[in-house]
Amino acid sequence: MENLLDGRKISAEINAETAQRVSQLNARGISPCLVFVRVGEDPASRVYVGMKEKTAAKLGIISRTIVLPEETSQETLLSLIKDLNADPETHGILVQAPLPKQIDETIVYRSVLPNKDVDGFHPENVGKLMLGESSGFVPCTPAGVHELLRRSGKTIPGSHAVILGRGNIVGKPMAALLIQKADDANCTVTVCHSRTPNIAEICRTADILIAAMGVPEFVTGDMVKPGAIVIDVGVNRIEDPNAKNGARLVGDVAFEAVRTLAGKITPNPGGVGPMTIAMLMRNTAQAATPGRA
Amino acid sequence: MENLLDGRKISAEINAETAQRVSQLNARGISPCLVFVRVGEDPASRVYVGMKEKTAAKLGIISRTIVLPEETSQETLLSLIKDLNADPETHGILVQAPLPKQIDETIVYRSVLPNKDVDGFHPENVGKLMLGESSGFVPCTPAGVHELLRRSGKTIPGSHAVILGRGNIVGKPMAALLIQKADDANCTVTVCHSRTPNIAEICRTADILIAAMGVPEFVTGDMVKPGAIVIDVGVNRIEDPNAKNGARLVGDVAFEAVRTLAGKITPNPGGVGPMTIAMLMRNTAQAATPGRA
Repeated sequence: MENLLDGRKISAEINAETAQRVSQLNARGISPCLVFVRVGEDPASRVYVGMKEKTAAKLGIISRTIVLPEETSQETLLSLIKDLNADPETHGILVQAPLPKQIDETIVYRSVLPNKDVDGFHPENVGKLMLGESSGFVPCTPAGVHELLRRSGKTIPGSHAVILGRGNIVGKPMAALLIQKADDANCTVTVCHSRTPNIAEICRTADILIAAMGVPEFVTGDMVKPGAIVIDVGVNRIEDPNAKNGARLVGDVAFEAVRTLAGKITPNPGGVGPMTIAMLMRNTAQAATPGRA
Repeated sequence: MENLLDGRKISAEINAETAQRVSQLNARGISPCLVFVRVGEDPASRVYVGMKEKTAAKLGIISRTIVLPEETSQETLLSLIKDLNADPETHGILVQAPLPKQIDETIVYRSVLPNKDVDGFHPENVGKLMLGESSGFVPCTPAGVHELLRRSGKTIPGSHAVILGRGNIVGKPMAALLIQKADDANCTVTVCHSRTPNIAEICRTADILIAAMGVPEFVTGDMVKPGAIVIDVGVNRIEDPNAKNGARLVGDVAFEAVRTLAGKITPNPGGVGPMTIAMLMRNTAQAATPGRA
């Protein structure tokens, strides 16, 4: 498949760059350290944190995982974050979603210092991204998609980028990235969502189509302009009696139908997923670098 | 002109609402106070601050204008803002652009406390707007355009809003407002700019067309779908030998040609301009209201 935009390969390149940056920091006596905070025993959270721990270790980034019991109060969690904010040896803090229902996620995420917020979810980091300032952290998934585009060999400026989904984690920051006046952006950007009436028609005008709606195989062949770059951010669990657990994961793109048309397309898995983790590691190295704003 | 979206009339309605809110605050012993900081004697800045002072006075908002000499250092300006941040009787702070060149505007705007930043330019306020949180301040011009749309009698949700221009003051926050999951938003949003190749074609698909590019009379009749709402944010000075000073102001929309097609259209002047000031006053009343985040 010549037109595959291989997230495993590209994330390996980025991870190699990050590992090099980490050893340069080590040579200056700095040990980049990322702290994961997990509350309760959500099985998916355990898997996600585990994958991130493993990548960190490979790149020379120290990670610590603090696990709190399901019944932890918001006050206790905020007090822990306050300590981590104050700890000079903690460079990045990641509070793994979801949090138990007695805890207000917005308050918790907001309590992480913006310059340790390697997830990029603090309003100050979101605002800097929107304003085109490079001193903040960019949320990992859209940052990963942006790197896929940058390393796709295709021209980004002047493209019409259509983003399906307007969530705070992918759709909105993705739009903010591609709209900027910059050589790796300068796109005309359209954001579509569940309330868009003529979504198929708009998709057909896309040079870059980014699917982050969370609807299984939403993007079909008739929605894609031949030669378009198609990025599948979706991770949807659908029932499948033939699968081991009675379910399997599919993306937001009907891959087999779209791959024959697309100029470039991400596989899923193996596309955006590994990029997200790579960008988290890069953000952590950035957080540990002295002199960044 | 039945299809005029009259900013003078609608801003008067909003100002009446704000005046009422101010008297309620007064009854609770609170005197909303907005402080203007002007550096140097830029003639346009003098006019703008003068207009805002006048509106504030009409609505019962106390305003103070601090004028610093052109050669003021950044340090002196930052120290003044620090004092205003700490002053419990100052609810809103507006540092009038432009600033002299020895001063870094970004640093100065950032130094205003987010909860006194009635201009809505602090990254924390920009981030909250993007994230769909109502606890921040929305920049005045896009907030004013949003109110024009809300009070236009037309349906906003499901519309395709095309925004011409991607500046930090209008285009980007405008997109953030209309993209939200809300009954006065829920638009499919396309942002176009100088690097958009087929801009006329995209404009023709707009149900709501917002021109904020700063190009005189850019939007012509052939770019507008019949029945569309057209909002002209542009203020451009063009030479005109027949005008009093050899120049006159025009918008980004060729008004005479477009008015016959548009479902609703803002005059210019008398459209967005008065709305901007009205929203500044509303933001100030909001800043003075106890218990807001």
